[in-house]
Amino acid sequence: MLDHTQVAAKAAIDPENFALANCLRALAIDAVNAANSGHPGAPMGMADAATVLFRNHLKFDASAPDWPDRDRFVLSNGHASMLLYGLLHLTGYEDMTRDQIRNFRQWGSITAGHPEWGHAKGVETTTGPLGQGLATAVGMALAERALAAEFPGLVDHRTWVMLGDGCLQEGIGQEAISLAGHLGLGKLNLLYDDNDITIDGPTSVSFSEDVPARLAACGWHVIRCDGHDAKALDEAMAAAKAETTRPSLIAMKTVIGFGSPNRAGTAKAHGAPLGEEEGALARQALGWEAAPFEIPEHLAAAWTAIGARGTQARAEWENALAASGKAEEFTARVEGKLPEGYAAAVEAARAELFEKPQSVATRKASQIALEHLAKAVPAIIGGSADLSGSNLTRVAAVDSTFTAAAPGRYIGYGVREFGMAAAMNGLALHGGFKPYGGTFLVFSDYARNAIRLSALMGLGVTYVMTHDSIGLGEDGPTHQPVEHLASLRAIPNLNVFRPADAVETLEAWDIAIRSTGTPSLLALSRQGVPQLRSAGDENLTARGAYVIRSFGEGRDVTLLATGTEVSLAVGAAEALHAEGHSVTVVSMPCWELFDAQPEDYRAEVLGTAPRIAVEAASAFGWTRYVTREADVIGMSGFGASAPAEQLYAEFGITADAVAARAKALIAG
Amino acid sequence: MLDHTQVAAKAAIDPENFALANCLRALAIDAVNAANSGHPGAPMGMADAATVLFRNHLKFDASAPDWPDRDRFVLSNGHASMLLYGLLHLTGYEDMTRDQIRNFRQWGSITAGHPEWGHAKGVETTTGPLGQGLATAVGMALAERALAAEFPGLVDHRTWVMLGDGCLQEGIGQEAISLAGHLGLGKLNLLYDDNDITIDGPTSVSFSEDVPARLAACGWHVIRCDGHDAKALDEAMAAAKAETTRPSLIAMKTVIGFGSPNRAGTAKAHGAPLGEEEGALARQALGWEAAPFEIPEHLAAAWTAIGARGTQARAEWENALAASGKAEEFTARVEGKLPEGYAAAVEAARAELFEKPQSVATRKASQIALEHLAKAVPAIIGGSADLSGSNLTRVAAVDSTFTAAAPGRYIGYGVREFGMAAAMNGLALHGGFKPYGGTFLVFSDYARNAIRLSALMGLGVTYVMTHDSIGLGEDGPTHQPVEHLASLRAIPNLNVFRPADAVETLEAWDIAIRSTGTPSLLALSRQGVPQLRSAGDENLTARGAYVIRSFGEGRDVTLLATGTEVSLAVGAAEALHAEGHSVTVVSMPCWELFDAQPEDYRAEVLGTAPRIAVEAASAFGWTRYVTREADVIGMSGFGASAPAEQLYAEFGITADAVAARAKALIAG
Repeated sequence: MLDHTQVAAKAAIDPENFALANCLRALAIDAVNAANSGHPGAPMGMADAATVLFRNHLKFDASAPDWPDRDRFVLSNGHASMLLYGLLHLTGYEDMTRDQIRNFRQWGSITAGHPEWGHAKGVETTTGPLGQGLATAVGMALAERALAAEFPGLVDHRTWVMLGDGCLQEGIGQEAISLAGHLGLGKLNLLYDDNDITIDGPTSVSFSEDVPARLAACGWHVIRCDGHDAKALDEAMAAAKAETTRPSLIAMKTVIGFGSPNRAGTAKAHGAPLGEEEGALARQALGWEAAPFEIPEHLAAAWTAIGARGTQARAEWENALAASGKAEEFTARVEGKLPEGYAAAVEAARAELFEKPQSVATRKASQIALEHLAKAVPAIIGGSADLSGSNLTRVAAVDSTFTAAAPGRYIGYGVREFGMAAAMNGLALHGGFKPYGGTFLVFSDYARNAIRLSALMGLGVTYVMTHDSIGLGEDGPTHQPVEHLASLRAIPNLNVFRPADAVETLEAWDIAIRSTGTPSLLALSRQGVPQLRSAGDENLTARGAYVIRSFGEGRDVTLLATGTEVSLAVGAAEALHAEGHSVTVVSMPCWELFDAQPEDYRAEVLGTAPRIAVEAASAFGWTRYVTREADVIGMSGFGASAPAEQLYAEFGITADAVAARAKALIAG
Repeated sequence: MLDHTQVAAKAAIDPENFALANCLRALAIDAVNAANSGHPGAPMGMADAATVLFRNHLKFDASAPDWPDRDRFVLSNGHASMLLYGLLHLTGYEDMTRDQIRNFRQWGSITAGHPEWGHAKGVETTTGPLGQGLATAVGMALAERALAAEFPGLVDHRTWVMLGDGCLQEGIGQEAISLAGHLGLGKLNLLYDDNDITIDGPTSVSFSEDVPARLAACGWHVIRCDGHDAKALDEAMAAAKAETTRPSLIAMKTVIGFGSPNRAGTAKAHGAPLGEEEGALARQALGWEAAPFEIPEHLAAAWTAIGARGTQARAEWENALAASGKAEEFTARVEGKLPEGYAAAVEAARAELFEKPQSVATRKASQIALEHLAKAVPAIIGGSADLSGSNLTRVAAVDSTFTAAAPGRYIGYGVREFGMAAAMNGLALHGGFKPYGGTFLVFSDYARNAIRLSALMGLGVTYVMTHDSIGLGEDGPTHQPVEHLASLRAIPNLNVFRPADAVETLEAWDIAIRSTGTPSLLALSRQGVPQLRSAGDENLTARGAYVIRSFGEGRDVTLLATGTEVSLAVGAAEALHAEGHSVTVVSMPCWELFDAQPEDYRAEVLGTAPRIAVEAASAFGWTRYVTREADVIGMSGFGASAPAEQLYAEFGITADAVAARAKALIAG
């Protein structure tokens, strides 16, 4: 139980800050009580620190939430959402009305249970899945540094992250910490809500390490302070800002549910409403007399003034932008507009492929496409989770490694797939960048929830996932994706591409780079494929599926295939045609785009003849297009370790097997 | 380039150890060359340490690979597989013949590209996906401690892990480190191959932290040594063994590809064969004169003696077991046999539900089932990733928290889903335990690749995944699974259960506990459901799907549903029946088990009438059972933040919607 004199002692340090913080605490109590669901404890514990941050340090202007040079504020422990909504409401973000606060967690409100990017202004990223806010913030800090180098004088802001124990227990938290320390992200500052409480009880049940020492070992600047001492907090934030070559951790000792006489300092304060009675006791303990959802006028005015703290700085920045001679370029860049020469670059790349066909692995085709596109689009920033040579993600235009000493267009993410994916989200959210990053398709598993957040937020990031089937061969089943295409296709709002040749790979890249509301994932092969396409101006991959070959008049059977299996299907079709059958081969590089086509186009492509699908992966999901899974020539279990060609033969993914199944279907 | 004199200097420290290590290096060079694929660098760099470990410290008997009290040896950097195969071959594991070494990475051999559990004896777990070997080893160390407390005198062994930078960069590595430090796993020892090289080049491109300092901050005992100095290694391992209350890290400075004049110390040594020429130069540098795959007789004899080092200890242990009076109990336990009273406990639980029906959330039903089963099966060991109160995973029988001071039957895994899942794999692999662990279904994403390894290895672990749909309500889309059921069903050899009521939940648990070759995942609801089943002895969930209700003669339509939507489907069926239609409702708690039923059973259950599926999740995959996705009443995108009932209404997952679709289908 919290000692009342402790509240008084903390309040006495800076009564104004304490009163302002109480506005946040009261709103959290009221909104969670009204919703009868939510998390009051963290907002109450972090209110003092948040007040100091917004009052004295954060560079922002509530009247211009999209100001490109604002500091980014990320609430990584997203369950504390009422803290963020309270801050946005009090500082005067136009859309964050009192009614939105009253409708916390209700249908149609912008005050979702966990902060969602795109709902309310001032929410810089969607958080809730722990650790990812921090890792996304690393991407924002990378973006700031890279953009500052390109536009000196126009970009100079910090990324502030609030987070709790959960974010630090999650492995992705450590990936982010390690990467940020390695790259010396001096403008990244963490405010760690070190409250000794986790859902299951005191953190001592599962978490006892020395967090500051861990971060110091990772190259961080570390400060410890009392999270309810406004003066200590102010000094700590000033010290964090003064440090320029290392990211800073401010480990704040806090009391969860600060102010609640019976729940403060216990897990009970975490995830349940205080309720009427305890809410009233907390108000009393805090000296808060206003009615629910009401803010005393003088405090409301003080908060409004805080929201306007950055107005002048923002106006000066607007002037600097206008005077820079780079206003148009900068604005186009942060708004994600593609440069003028972009379409021509794609056409040139296409023409080159038609002139000099490339029968290569699609990962190599990806590199060829990227050589063109990355040169044309300065916003493109690449990287790989330590598989550059395998993913073929490094191309000339981005061949400048991002280091602590200088930013570059290629980020060595290390063996940190999850951290990479979240950082890519941060690069995209910050603005100014089109990130891509590579790993093996099987390790999309490691990054999966960040890919999900790319899709949920609708960010135009591109995942380059190579070694996309048993075709990778000897590395064996731990490295051979089987269920991954299905499991990724199941994610809403994610375009999963599996291009068949160099032309489709270029087309997929073109779609990915143009995409603004949907992330793209390219599943690419290790092994070579013939170039099947030799002419034509249309981006057929944008159709999702199309007839790539027809043999004979009419159709006895349709073969649907993706990626490396398209050429295999063509081989089967040729054999069937030689035996007198009419066969149509459909390449299906992107289900999602195909399903979005008009019904008559889909009907025409799929035809009315029996259909077989060919894909060296789980048959799961293919019954969307074929009658039964027996009509899928694919994998029914895990792969094995052996040379690729032998694996295809042993698992029965062969032109002969396709032809045999086709003949059985034709025969009825 | 490696200085030749350096090789000589290291060799001089302990010439015998060096010569023995050269056997491992030579086999790695030869096998990778023969396969023309693989990773020679790590085996060559770690050979000296591995030799010291097997020669002086590891408790094992090559003639009895399944000796329950052997030390566990985990090669977490699985790409170094030839090191492990070489060790097993040289020490005399019967199945690891010279021919298997010659057939490294070939179809049908037990020498897969990455070590696979179940292929070769002595491979304690499947590794390759980085970081997971370490996290699985934590589970083994937990198992050792818990079993030792139950069977004092019979269990006392260590877990040794070799790992590289990749395992330490992956977030799951930190989760494992943090948990092991917290729980003071003093018998867990890491041998860190600190070679300064990663695939993309020197580790300085992406990894610059002070690893020993990081682990020290997490409560580890830390030792640094020269990884090619046999004496220093021996002392370090002795020091690690002497430490009993903290896990130990031995950070060994090594040279990747040690012995290869032109590749040692560079990324080129990592993942490509040395080839004939460089292989010959390496042999020369190492003073190795034997032909490929040949081991000089005196060295072969010395290795065989190493393999027999533990024979006497093992014999003494067998005697101790026989004399303990617990031989039968212990053996049954490590062989995974269920206690005699198990079936009766299940029947009692079933009878209780029939006597006093429980209309509760299926997460609550899971807790009720577990109360019975955990009491009956001492091998059951539980836990949660900091969501015990939400997952309802804590029951009386396991209500003893595992701490550093004393083992218990409940593990507070902290907010570490991936680490939890891998530790569960380790608990199962060790023997003696039936682990289960809980989190929210949406965070199966975080643990996904460990779930995949459960399936690939075929381990009888149970994932308790609650809050299985939009039914969780206000926490919003970040916490609402949509694509997860589909993406998990796509994983081969994983039973995904979504029980409809308390009876099905008990049945699913029964199947999970009996399962030895297939992991189980229970998707459980936050919100309540009526108990639909009221009598019957058969475990109908084991059928995967079955007719749970029939209304009217014949069938006009069949409604397939899972979980919380079964009762919704029953409601729709009642309404349709009231309008004169004959309707059959099929509960489908486990697709995988249903698909394994005889064809006539499946045909009977599915019937020939039009079918509709009802599941508050993505329709992806349901076309296995229905004609088109329009016949699935489910989700087409992400969820939202609002009370659950409203979400069901807004997303159109209602009895009315089911009835309307049914009528449209019946009308044709």
